[in-house]
Amino acid sequence: MTPQPLPEVGAAVKAADRAHVFHSWSAQELIDPLAVAGAEGSYFWDYDGKRYLDFTSGLVYTNIGYQHPKVVAAIQEQAARLTTFAPAFAIEARSEAARLIAERTPGDLDKIFFTNGGADAVEHAVRMARLHTGRAKVLSAYRSYHGGTQQAVNLTGDPRRWASDTASHGVVHFWAPFLYRSRFYAETEEQECARALEHLETTIAFEGPATIAAIVLETIPGTAGIMIPPPGYLAGVREICDRHGILFVLDEVMAGFGRTGDWFAADLFGVVPDLMTFAKGVNSGYVPLGGVAISGAVAETFARRPYPGGLTYSGHPLACAAAVATINVMAEEGVVENAKRLGASVVEPALRELAARHPSVGEVRGVGMFWALELVRDRETREPLVPYNATGEANGPMAAFAAAAKKHGVWPFVNMNRTHVVPPCNVSEAELKEGLAGLDAALGVADEYTV
Amino acid sequence: MTPQPLPEVGAAVKAADRAHVFHSWSAQELIDPLAVAGAEGSYFWDYDGKRYLDFTSGLVYTNIGYQHPKVVAAIQEQAARLTTFAPAFAIEARSEAARLIAERTPGDLDKIFFTNGGADAVEHAVRMARLHTGRAKVLSAYRSYHGGTQQAVNLTGDPRRWASDTASHGVVHFWAPFLYRSRFYAETEEQECARALEHLETTIAFEGPATIAAIVLETIPGTAGIMIPPPGYLAGVREICDRHGILFVLDEVMAGFGRTGDWFAADLFGVVPDLMTFAKGVNSGYVPLGGVAISGAVAETFARRPYPGGLTYSGHPLACAAAVATINVMAEEGVVENAKRLGASVVEPALRELAARHPSVGEVRGVGMFWALELVRDRETREPLVPYNATGEANGPMAAFAAAAKKHGVWPFVNMNRTHVVPPCNVSEAELKEGLAGLDAALGVADEYTV
Repeated sequence: MTPQPLPEVGAAVKAADRAHVFHSWSAQELIDPLAVAGAEGSYFWDYDGKRYLDFTSGLVYTNIGYQHPKVVAAIQEQAARLTTFAPAFAIEARSEAARLIAERTPGDLDKIFFTNGGADAVEHAVRMARLHTGRAKVLSAYRSYHGGTQQAVNLTGDPRRWASDTASHGVVHFWAPFLYRSRFYAETEEQECARALEHLETTIAFEGPATIAAIVLETIPGTAGIMIPPPGYLAGVREICDRHGILFVLDEVMAGFGRTGDWFAADLFGVVPDLMTFAKGVNSGYVPLGGVAISGAVAETFARRPYPGGLTYSGHPLACAAAVATINVMAEEGVVENAKRLGASVVEPALRELAARHPSVGEVRGVGMFWALELVRDRETREPLVPYNATGEANGPMAAFAAAAKKHGVWPFVNMNRTHVVPPCNVSEAELKEGLAGLDAALGVADEYTV
Repeated sequence: MTPQPLPEVGAAVKAADRAHVFHSWSAQELIDPLAVAGAEGSYFWDYDGKRYLDFTSGLVYTNIGYQHPKVVAAIQEQAARLTTFAPAFAIEARSEAARLIAERTPGDLDKIFFTNGGADAVEHAVRMARLHTGRAKVLSAYRSYHGGTQQAVNLTGDPRRWASDTASHGVVHFWAPFLYRSRFYAETEEQECARALEHLETTIAFEGPATIAAIVLETIPGTAGIMIPPPGYLAGVREICDRHGILFVLDEVMAGFGRTGDWFAADLFGVVPDLMTFAKGVNSGYVPLGGVAISGAVAETFARRPYPGGLTYSGHPLACAAAVATINVMAEEGVVENAKRLGASVVEPALRELAARHPSVGEVRGVGMFWALELVRDRETREPLVPYNATGEANGPMAAFAAAAKKHGVWPFVNMNRTHVVPPCNVSEAELKEGLAGLDAALGVADEYTV
């Protein structure tokens, strides 16, 4: 498909949207959603025929890009065969998706509980941990996002949690390592790591180790800023968990399935959690799907005692068939390796070069196709380009940055004072260079807001 | 497609399932999932070529039966066009699904927030109610099911709630009307209705009206037993809500989209809630989809203030395209009318005739394609055929009933001491008669356990 101007169709789509669609995380009358006509690979286009290079992979989920023909064909075939069936039955696509996922998950995470997305995966992982340990409390990090349902949003560390904090308990937030904005007055990665582990250990001591069911962490926090944990941190958390009988839950909804240049971010650190959540990249969101990979010990807890949780679309055949095709495509086409190779050979050097030229870039960090640029008013003080959780005028500089990127044909991922470079994992070198050129131009606009 | 014996394939599907699939609501080693090879219309079949008439509609969600060719074709077309796109954009299938749903929802429920299923629809409806009212507490009924995530399962009144009750608050359960097992010592529907409203009113008075954000009810409770509320009850709840500034949330995840012989069960009672949740029948679960229909007043709350909730797959294009096709098929083929007509002309008289002949049938109740048979040991005392929440041997009589139905080629819906007759809404008269004959035989087995 190629972009064609169809402005009347676009206007009708937009009108019905404005009349009837209630959008996520938005003030409904203050948004102006772009009507999108089509998409392919790393690009999408609107009804005026304007094309954008998608540096966001949607919401960091289309790891194989848009409309991969093999996955589209697999969805069409499964739709013709058996598009849906209830969860209590054994279904070929369900069995095969579970097998392919279990084959790739670390350690003995060999049982797969399927959900519809990341939020309910986190909800169920927390329930499993509470029932396995008989403890209620869960620890999670301030700089984190774990999903939009009540339990998942209460685990979340970013401001999206606040509005729902009135009717929940059982979650305690702590600080995970992040040297650039250290909460531990650290000057080196080693110091940050050691102090972050000390902080966690002390928090656990004061909360009461025997009250804590689980520590839930994104292996690499995603929307919160792509902070790669320092060497030894996750292994340290694993050791603390083991010492106190606490389950270690890694949330790989965003980081998993190739995003980091490995199948799972946990692989980068050689850490095996007790429970691991996934969604997004598992089938590039072609059909809604998420899940929890479960260790042998936790599965044993529910071997002869019912697991008190479930959902109508658990292991949905169409979603699972899309996962089977996606995983096979990723393996056959070297999508994970592509993310690793171009991340190291193209993205990292280019972003470091941009950082050297643009005073608005405070830090570059990332791995694979998972990169963040921290934009600042002042490199010395590291004052963010916009205040934490800014809206309206206070967010002007980031809005100007985003508008400039779009003008240059690049759709940027923007959160707080950061832009993330998170294109599809099968992006080409030429596409990356095109996108990085647009980013270069947009950073020129951000520079105007530096001191 | 027709059933063909493929036992080796079935064995492989089953083996991978047992190795890797963690099933909903189950003790993983005590289950023996049937491997299903295919399905069409009201039937499905296993790998031995044995065919079953599905009297469950999956989990009461395939309202148009399996593999409706028009909806399968629509899924295939949308997959080829644009299978997924992020929620912040206007997308044709998303706009059209919202428009078609809003066209059918009662009153001014004209804004549609899409989720992945029923549980997260309930989660978001509760959040909207809390933020709209500024109150935290939510009332729901003991005999109810609202979903498997933390907030939704805490609203639930059945035993599936218990395991997750350790880490939640903000929910108060009350008793809704149910004359056959009245909690109000009532002898007529009028008495039950008046006393249930008095009970609710008093509960609200003692909880503090100004602490209550919402009353959440299934319009007709589904898995909990298909208890049709007596005339005037829902209108009474609406009036109580209005008087105290409490939002009225109707959960139509199971009852909506044709199940009752109307588009929504609320239509049967002429009641307009403030928020209405849906899922299942909206697209017969061909692709995971749920949502909340939002009144003008609640939408206004989030017009210029962001709604703090969302999800990656909100308004998923493939799921929405399936909804568009499903709703159009239901309208074109008179599926809703079929449920109403055959419910009244075939199902109800047949079930009443079965009840007359089988001493195990304590009560028949329902509407459309939404019927429950209450099975009892003793019609006089109304002692249930098995105790509340029975498992293992204690559940033997219901297990024997279910096994007999399957032997006769009918897959029955069984919960506690009830069987529900919930075939697809486009079931034929001949299929109904076939299924009712199987039910007749199975009730013969249930009769053996009566006093």
